[in-house]
Amino acid sequence: MAVDRITELKQYLDRGDKTALEKFLRKLHPADIAFMFQDMEFEEKLSVLTLLNFEKAGSVLGELDEGERSEILSSLGPEPLSDIVEAIPSDDAADILSEVSEEKAEKTLELMEEEEAEDVEELMKYSPETAGGIMIPDFFSLSEETTVDEAILALRKEKNVEMLSYLYVVDEDGRLSGVVSLRRLIAAEGDCRLKEIMNREVVSARTDVDQEEVAGLVRKYDLRALAIVDGNGRLIGRVTVDDVMDVIEEEATEDIYKMVGTDDEELSKKSILNVVRLRLPWLLISLVGGIVAATIMKSFNVTLENVIALAFFIPVIMGMGGNIGMQSSTIVVRGLATGRIKLGHIWGVLFREIRTGALMGLICGAVVGVAAHIFQGKVVLGIVVASSMFIAITVAAVVGALMPLMLKSLKIDPAIASGPFVTTANDITGLLIYFLLATSFIRYLG
Amino acid sequence: MAVDRITELKQYLDRGDKTALEKFLRKLHPADIAFMFQDMEFEEKLSVLTLLNFEKAGSVLGELDEGERSEILSSLGPEPLSDIVEAIPSDDAADILSEVSEEKAEKTLELMEEEEAEDVEELMKYSPETAGGIMIPDFFSLSEETTVDEAILALRKEKNVEMLSYLYVVDEDGRLSGVVSLRRLIAAEGDCRLKEIMNREVVSARTDVDQEEVAGLVRKYDLRALAIVDGNGRLIGRVTVDDVMDVIEEEATEDIYKMVGTDDEELSKKSILNVVRLRLPWLLISLVGGIVAATIMKSFNVTLENVIALAFFIPVIMGMGGNIGMQSSTIVVRGLATGRIKLGHIWGVLFREIRTGALMGLICGAVVGVAAHIFQGKVVLGIVVASSMFIAITVAAVVGALMPLMLKSLKIDPAIASGPFVTTANDITGLLIYFLLATSFIRYLG
Repeated sequence: MAVDRITELKQYLDRGDKTALEKFLRKLHPADIAFMFQDMEFEEKLSVLTLLNFEKAGSVLGELDEGERSEILSSLGPEPLSDIVEAIPSDDAADILSEVSEEKAEKTLELMEEEEAEDVEELMKYSPETAGGIMIPDFFSLSEETTVDEAILALRKEKNVEMLSYLYVVDEDGRLSGVVSLRRLIAAEGDCRLKEIMNREVVSARTDVDQEEVAGLVRKYDLRALAIVDGNGRLIGRVTVDDVMDVIEEEATEDIYKMVGTDDEELSKKSILNVVRLRLPWLLISLVGGIVAATIMKSFNVTLENVIALAFFIPVIMGMGGNIGMQSSTIVVRGLATGRIKLGHIWGVLFREIRTGALMGLICGAVVGVAAHIFQGKVVLGIVVASSMFIAITVAAVVGALMPLMLKSLKIDPAIASGPFVTTANDITGLLIYFLLATSFIRYLG
Repeated sequence: MAVDRITELKQYLDRGDKTALEKFLRKLHPADIAFMFQDMEFEEKLSVLTLLNFEKAGSVLGELDEGERSEILSSLGPEPLSDIVEAIPSDDAADILSEVSEEKAEKTLELMEEEEAEDVEELMKYSPETAGGIMIPDFFSLSEETTVDEAILALRKEKNVEMLSYLYVVDEDGRLSGVVSLRRLIAAEGDCRLKEIMNREVVSARTDVDQEEVAGLVRKYDLRALAIVDGNGRLIGRVTVDDVMDVIEEEATEDIYKMVGTDDEELSKKSILNVVRLRLPWLLISLVGGIVAATIMKSFNVTLENVIALAFFIPVIMGMGGNIGMQSSTIVVRGLATGRIKLGHIWGVLFREIRTGALMGLICGAVVGVAAHIFQGKVVLGIVVASSMFIAITVAAVVGALMPLMLKSLKIDPAIASGPFVTTANDITGLLIYFLLATSFIRYLG
C-alpha cells in the first residue's frame, strides 16, 4: 500500500505532471505525506511542498523529524515560511520558528498578521519541554451565567479553535472556575446555565510545569485537554491529548537513550562528529573505569602469574556483574519514571533486588564454578570463581538498584547517570572481590 | 499535598470514623485513591473499597497495578465483584474478570445483568494486546440520512456511551461509512443530513490488529478514538485515546525491560523465584558466552603466560566493545519501535554506525593505547591494545546495529533478543581480535 503510493508519487514527479500530482496529494493525510518524505530526494520534497496549500504544507513540516525539517526550513525564505506558519496552529508555528535562525524568525514574524505573530512570539518564550512550550494558546471559554443555547450558538461562530473537546468556564478576571465537555453540553437542557452543569474540579497546570508532569495529569484523569493557567490562575491555553501522546513517547525514548549514554537527538544529527560528541562522555567514564581495572590487576600481578587460569574467568565475572547491575538499574530507572516505584519505598525495592541478586548469584556461581573445576581440574579454583561470582552479582544488584534511587533523591536524572556509573562501579568491585578471594586462597590454587 | 491526604485518611481509618471517611473519599478522584493504596495495609484497602460506590470502587481497581489488584480480587466473592464490574466500562470489566479464576469469573458473569455480561464475555475472547482486547464495545452510530437536530436529540437520550467524541455514521449493514466529531455536529445547521457533514475518510482497525499499531494510528491521525470493525467492516467498538496513552507507555516500558532481559511483569511479581525465572534465560546466554570466552583464553594460554600484562587490558577491551554494542543496538531497537528507522534503510543506518564506531574506536583506542604504553613501558603493547580496541569497537557498532535489524526482518522482536546476543557476540569477537593480534606480535611483546 505505502510502497504503491510512493511509486505513484515518483511517477508523477518524474513526468513533471503537476496536475496529477496535485490531485494525488489532495487525497493524502499530511502524516502520510511526511512518511513518504523518507524515500524522497531533497528536491522532490520541495516540489511536493510547494504544491500543497499552506496549511497542509505546515502540517507536513510538523510531522517531520527535526533534522529533516531543519534542512527544508533552511531553504525556505521568510515569505513562504510566513504563509505556512500563519496557516498552522500557533504551537506548531512556534516550534518551527524556534528552529530557524533568529534573523529569519524575526523577518517571518514581521510578515505575519499581527495577532497571530504575537501569539507565536508569546509561545516562543516558554522553554520547549514545559506546559507553556507545548500548549496551544487558543481555547473556548464563557462565563458562568451563559446558557447552554447561548454556548452552542457561540461555538457555531467560533471557527478557529482546533481539537476542541471542552468548554472552559471563567470568572470576570479570566480565572478558571469550571469545565463542560461538549458531550455534556449537548446532553443538557437549552436554558441551563453553565454553572449548573459544569464540573468544578478542573484539572489545570501552570505554564512552567514540566511536560512529563503534564502528560501524567492527562493520563491520570483521562483528559482530552489540560487547561494551562498563568501565575494568577488565569486561563491562557490548553495542552491537547495528541501532543501528550507525543510527550509520552518522547520521554520514554529519551530515557532509553540516556541509559546508554546518548540522546534522542542522535537520529536527527547529520554529522558523525556530533553523534560521537553525544556518546563519548559516557564511554570515557567506562574507559577510565577500565584503566582503573587494569591498575588493580597489575597490583595483583603475583597472584595472576602464579595461577594464569585466574585470568580466564575475569570476563565472565565482570560481565555477569555488569548484566545484573544493568537489569536492576533499568528496573528502578523505569519504575521511577512511570511512578511504579516511589522514593518512599526504597527499602522494599532494595531488599527485593538483594534477594533476587543473591539467588541469581547462587545459580550462576554454581554453573561457572563447576565449569571452572572441569576446566582446570582444581576444586579450589571452582570454589573461588563460584564465590566471587556469587558476591559480585549480589553486590551488582544492590549497586544497580541503589544508584538511580540515590541520583533521584539528589534530583539528578537517574536515567542519564545510572548506566556508566553502575557498570564501572560493578566492574571494579567484581574484579576486587575476585582477586582478593584468589589471593587469600593462593596456596591452594598454585 | 498527597502526604497530607494519606495522613488524613489514616486518621479516619484508625478512628474507625466511617462518616468522615466516606465524606473524605467522595471528594477524591479514583486515580488519587489508587495512588494512596501504595501506602496502605491490605485490610485498610478493603475497608476503603467497601465504602465507595460500585462504580468508584471499580475505577480504583482499574487504576491499580496487576499485582496489587489480583491480591484484592482474590479476597472478593462473586457477589461484590459482580456489582463492581457491572458498574464500570465493559473493557475494564473484562480485564478484571480475566485476572480471576475461571470459576469465579463464570459465577460473577451469571450474577450480572445479561446484556452487560454478554458484552464482557465477548471482550474476554480477544487477546489482551490487540484492538479487540483494548476496545470498548459501545459507540454511538446513526444512519447517513439522519439530520443534525435528530442526531443531537438522540445524543441527549444516550447516557451510556463513555468518553464520546465522535458520532459514527453507518450503512444499513452496520458498515462504517463516515464520522462526525461532536465539534462538527454542534457547528452544523440543524437540518443538514449527516452524510453532508461527515468525514468519509474514517480511520479504523480490525479487532485482531496489534495494540501497538492501534496506538500508531491514533497518534498519526491525532484521533480521540479509533473505530474498531469486524472482518466484514461492521463497526463493533472503539479504542479511546486514554487507553492509547496507556498502550504507548506500556509498550515503551516493555521494550526497555526486554532489552535487559526481563519483563514489565516483574514489578507485579510477588515472589523472587518468579523474578529470577524471568531474568535468568538472558543471563544464562551471557554465562555461556563467558565460558566460551574462558575457553578461548585458555587456548591462548601460551601468549598469556609470556606476557601477563595482556590480561590487564582484557576487561577494558571487552567492556568498551560491550558498551558501544549496547549503544548501537539501543538506537536501532528504539528507532525501529518508533518508526524513525525503517527496515528499508538498513544500509544508511549501518554505514552511519560503522563510521561512528570507527571514530569512537580511534579515540578510545588512542587513550587506552597510551595508558598501556605508560603502564608497561612497551610501545608494542600500546599498539596492540590500541588496535584491538579500535577493531573491537568498530565491529561492536556493526554487530549492535545489525542484530536488531536482522531479528526484525526475521519477525523476531528486536528488543527481546538484542541485549544478550549483542553483548555475547561482542565479548567473544573482542577477545579473539585481541589475542590474535597479541599472538602475532608476541616476539615484540615478551
